[in-house]
Amino acid sequence: MADSQEDLLLKIQEQGDLVRKLKAAKDSNERVKEEVSKLLALKAQLVTEDAGPQKFTLKTPKGTRDYNPQQMTIRNNVLDKIITVFRRHGAECIDTPVFELKDVLTGKYGEDSKLIYDLKDQGGEILSLRYDLTVPLARYLAMNKITTLKRYHIAKVYRRDNPAMTRGRYREFYQCDFDIAGIYDPMVPDAECLKVVTEILEALDIGQYILKVNHRRLLDGMFEACGVPADKFRTTCSTVDKLDKSPWEEVRTEMINEKGVSPDAADRIGEYVRLNGSTELVEKLLKDEKLSKVKAALEGVEAIKTLLQYCELFGIKDKILFDLSLARGLDYYTGVIYEAVLTQPIKIGNEEQTVGSIAGGGRYDNLVGMFDSKNKQVPCVGVSIGVERIFSVLEAKLAAGDITVRTSDIDVYVASAQKNFLEERMKICAELWDAGIKTEQSYKKNPKMLNQLQHCEENKIPLAVVLGDSELKRGVVKIRNITTREEDEVPRNDLVQEIKKRIDNLNLNQLNGAT
Amino acid sequence: MADSQEDLLLKIQEQGDLVRKLKAAKDSNERVKEEVSKLLALKAQLVTEDAGPQKFTLKTPKGTRDYNPQQMTIRNNVLDKIITVFRRHGAECIDTPVFELKDVLTGKYGEDSKLIYDLKDQGGEILSLRYDLTVPLARYLAMNKITTLKRYHIAKVYRRDNPAMTRGRYREFYQCDFDIAGIYDPMVPDAECLKVVTEILEALDIGQYILKVNHRRLLDGMFEACGVPADKFRTTCSTVDKLDKSPWEEVRTEMINEKGVSPDAADRIGEYVRLNGSTELVEKLLKDEKLSKVKAALEGVEAIKTLLQYCELFGIKDKILFDLSLARGLDYYTGVIYEAVLTQPIKIGNEEQTVGSIAGGGRYDNLVGMFDSKNKQVPCVGVSIGVERIFSVLEAKLAAGDITVRTSDIDVYVASAQKNFLEERMKICAELWDAGIKTEQSYKKNPKMLNQLQHCEENKIPLAVVLGDSELKRGVVKIRNITTREEDEVPRNDLVQEIKKRIDNLNLNQLNGAT
Repeated sequence: MADSQEDLLLKIQEQGDLVRKLKAAKDSNERVKEEVSKLLALKAQLVTEDAGPQKFTLKTPKGTRDYNPQQMTIRNNVLDKIITVFRRHGAECIDTPVFELKDVLTGKYGEDSKLIYDLKDQGGEILSLRYDLTVPLARYLAMNKITTLKRYHIAKVYRRDNPAMTRGRYREFYQCDFDIAGIYDPMVPDAECLKVVTEILEALDIGQYILKVNHRRLLDGMFEACGVPADKFRTTCSTVDKLDKSPWEEVRTEMINEKGVSPDAADRIGEYVRLNGSTELVEKLLKDEKLSKVKAALEGVEAIKTLLQYCELFGIKDKILFDLSLARGLDYYTGVIYEAVLTQPIKIGNEEQTVGSIAGGGRYDNLVGMFDSKNKQVPCVGVSIGVERIFSVLEAKLAAGDITVRTSDIDVYVASAQKNFLEERMKICAELWDAGIKTEQSYKKNPKMLNQLQHCEENKIPLAVVLGDSELKRGVVKIRNITTREEDEVPRNDLVQEIKKRIDNLNLNQLNGAT
Repeated sequence: MADSQEDLLLKIQEQGDLVRKLKAAKDSNERVKEEVSKLLALKAQLVTEDAGPQKFTLKTPKGTRDYNPQQMTIRNNVLDKIITVFRRHGAECIDTPVFELKDVLTGKYGEDSKLIYDLKDQGGEILSLRYDLTVPLARYLAMNKITTLKRYHIAKVYRRDNPAMTRGRYREFYQCDFDIAGIYDPMVPDAECLKVVTEILEALDIGQYILKVNHRRLLDGMFEACGVPADKFRTTCSTVDKLDKSPWEEVRTEMINEKGVSPDAADRIGEYVRLNGSTELVEKLLKDEKLSKVKAALEGVEAIKTLLQYCELFGIKDKILFDLSLARGLDYYTGVIYEAVLTQPIKIGNEEQTVGSIAGGGRYDNLVGMFDSKNKQVPCVGVSIGVERIFSVLEAKLAAGDITVRTSDIDVYVASAQKNFLEERMKICAELWDAGIKTEQSYKKNPKMLNQLQHCEENKIPLAVVLGDSELKRGVVKIRNITTREEDEVPRNDLVQEIKKRIDNLNLNQLNGAT
């Protein structure tokens, strides 16, 4: 569009304003009609000849969404808090491509592989969008022959699932992972992952929580002790994983009818999976007649015992629940598994919402070896923070008016009460920007004073510089406090310094809670 | 892998250490052989039975790369500086999905459409990866009926181009865009985009630069004045765009032979495109015999005149070069166009590298209307920062040893000189973490003192807490300054407070340049 068309758009807006004003003022029908017809004539000029309007429905792909400035502000605030915790523990940041060779993803996700997005074969490599950040990490470690790494990775992943967007489940969503790779002593990095999760949940302050823990070796040992054949351990484990959503009776039926577990074995499993507790449960299981005869089970219980001991040293033992019903869906876990759960519904407006699981993870010692030609292992343990659920809670709170967010951090608005001040406004803006001060002005030559002040109020901009003829002649400008509506004059030459002082004061007052 | 296998890995590492020690000490061949065979026996146990090693070449897809911690640190530092400038100008942040309905991208990129990545049709919508951030912005504005927005968007985009990765050109790369949408007075937001670019280039401090500007209306008017038929304006413009890489003679030949421009017209264009300057060029063109008869050309020159005036008010006029050879490839520009160019090669190690274009943009007033069923326009102007080129320069500097980066910001390492201090180390770590102090320790039960100190030096960790039997009995711990190697004792109970004090001092010294 040429500048002439810009002028046209401006004219249309002004004409529209006029029409609305006349209508509001109940001006004569004739006058209104006349101005409306002018408006329509202007609009008729607007349609460009070369670009036809689009024919398809305008939307984002199924299961995806845009993040608007308010949502991005919420998202960035949450991620900043999480990154602060990750970095407090010395984690480094990495990133990987959004797509991988399809072969990298093949055989890693079991039944869920059908949810992977494939790229079209456009003559080249066969590619798929990443499904999580764990397999790319394993590929990265193996490819670069890295044997120790403590890293975080925050990025979007893709699953062709049936989205439940109101509950914060999308086809494109953020994962936020912290992992420790390397050969270390048992449970030392594993306990630190739990410490990281508690620090994050405290920092986010989204309610009371517990951290459930269990161990894949204990689950395997338990299945063995209950009489499940070894080749049915994994599939039985997937069924146990449904206990957080389904009652035991349903899970039992699935085990017997779909997984071929005997009713006796299922009942024995049923006895165990209702157990949860802490050190006293560890002691009970160590003496358990059936389990104590199975090596894997004993190893698992001993590992949990060590984990609980370390959690006590970290001061987080009261948050940990050793829970034999925790199974986790993914096949690749080989040791401890965790899940953080909010224990109370969250209040949103006048309603309460149950959030449930908010972080999860575990140890996966065999995944990196799957990418190494000599099958060389790099043991890993990690945790993934369910940031989408956190975003969705905060967005609901925003919608209910429970919280507010500021999407820009402008401190100063440069306004003028009279016409023909664009040049002076521009000079002042440049001075303020060059001094590092967050500053805005209207992009119109002669904006209305009311509109300028309204913009400040709507956007919670604390200060306005107000230019006027009489003041400039006297070598001064007005500074207006938008909240108190107080105005005073300062010498034009001292403006930058004065503004800096006032921003510092405002920030100080805010820190002291005095606003 | 079970904990028993973790134990195995630890044993392998220890056994490996032993073998290396014996070899270094030139121990008896027999002894070495014996320990090596033990090592091999341990390694033989390691191979897991269920996971076969992978068969395909381990790599990232063509034209893509991982970002390792050093690269991510560079990237985050650069982006932080850019975001600071964007936010200083009041820009809000948005994000859009990585893929769009294919229809959204269709017909927006001309010949380059063949570079778009399509997703496989897996039964659902036909999707493509985003090619830039401008078309998604236009779709976002039209879909949400937003008529004013000042936003930035930093995200990866995808082009199936022939990658030149050594020069920082990839198939997956970051774009970093700042755009102002809305009906405003001519050139006011346009000038602010240039101001934003200068602030960013100053903040990044990567060398001298100029900002070339031109205007699509002037280009069209110039083509008209030179006798190019109107239907050949766009394609002639694409040819002019090659002038930054090819000499005029080649461009002239392409115009005549491929685009069907007459030799006379091409020669007349040749006269104009070698012109560049500032206000004096504006005045010259306003009086130009041919141009002054063409309305579009005059509009373009008048617009540049206003732009230069505003740039003077912003204090950046000395950086601006009005250059008639600047054309910009994309079809959708309708008004001012810009390009920032580094004017000196950058020194990397002992070599010099020419970087060239580092930002570009312009006004596109018709793009949003293409998505609106009533063709309603939202005029936009914006600029895109070539962050990949900046990353690639800084990475080369890092590789040449010209700069260093710290990938983690740990302040304190908790070490012990003797065995059996894991529990005490854990307690101290938890105390420090809970006080918000960035702290690390070894994940081994009994790490060697030398390895612990080496870790601190390699990772530039400034302080270590060193635990020892005799000190703990006296109720004290040692604090070691890693740089000076000075150690002193502080009461165990005052540790957190003492560490905080020292970190504050270190930071203060760093601010004063006294390290």
